[in-house]
Amino acid sequence: MSVDQALIDSSIRNWNIHIERGTKAFDRMTEEQLQLEVSPGRNRVIYILGHLIAIHDALLPLLRISDRLYPELDRPFVSNPDRAVESGLTGNDLKLKWNEVNRALEIGFAGISPKDWTTRHNAVSVEDFEKEPHRHRFSVFLSRSAHLAMHLGQIRLVP
Amino acid sequence: MSVDQALIDSSIRNWNIHIERGTKAFDRMTEEQLQLEVSPGRNRVIYILGHLIAIHDALLPLLRISDRLYPELDRPFVSNPDRAVESGLTGNDLKLKWNEVNRALEIGFAGISPKDWTTRHNAVSVEDFEKEPHRHRFSVFLSRSAHLAMHLGQIRLVP
Repeated sequence: MSVDQALIDSSIRNWNIHIERGTKAFDRMTEEQLQLEVSPGRNRVIYILGHLIAIHDALLPLLRISDRLYPELDRPFVSNPDRAVESGLTGNDLKLKWNEVNRALEIGFAGISPKDWTTRHNAVSVEDFEKEPHRHRFSVFLSRSAHLAMHLGQIRLVP
Repeated sequence: MSVDQALIDSSIRNWNIHIERGTKAFDRMTEEQLQLEVSPGRNRVIYILGHLIAIHDALLPLLRISDRLYPELDRPFVSNPDRAVESGLTGNDLKLKWNEVNRALEIGFAGISPKDWTTRHNAVSVEDFEKEPHRHRFSVFLSRSAHLAMHLGQIRLVP
């Protein structure tokens, strides 16, 4: 296997490990447990779940895989803090969307070659990318991998 | 730049971003604030700081960069839970070690070529690596990057 393919495979494996950890953590929790805050006065688990779905969903166009599946999640889970906007969704609704969006990403990742991972992501213009060639798809992917790990670390604090 | 070098550069940049975030978070905190728990009954910030130093220190031999700088941190910060073993170190002592170990890693990372990143890490034997070729240095590095992000996410919860 080429070095670049080994590096990409490893990065996607690392992502998948954390997705699976998240899935296990969310699946273990009842609707009541999803209402718990990760620390007093901080986000509830259900908000973090919705937030991760929305951010992962936004990766689809950002990595030029596809259009978003759930743009309506931005208002309750990204542009507003926890409890500010009612999403109307249960924990179970969100668990299904979590699986759907991560499945769409998994398929999308598999279709990107190592070289394509180093092409620009969709939030940087062709002109800006010439000046800042590190703003590629792999860079965004790493950033979202860390974002995922960060929030999973918070969820682990729930009793 | 080659694709594999671009992937490595991006991964190290992502690591550095999180190291800097950690440094800023720790530097902002007084000795008293470092004693705070990230959530009631959970680890204190100072334990997480010591834990991250010890885990990063262990990366030095694991990536075959050098011997460890601070093996004595394992007992208070890795093999035992928070408050079980007194380290005898102040927050300020730990902040200095945090900088030292991350500096040693930074220099070490720069000396590893993309191809070398895909060679075995030091906790896997030559024989096992032949059967499981994904257990390479880059894989360990990604795992520790996620570990860092996970704990930084917890520290963000401190008021």
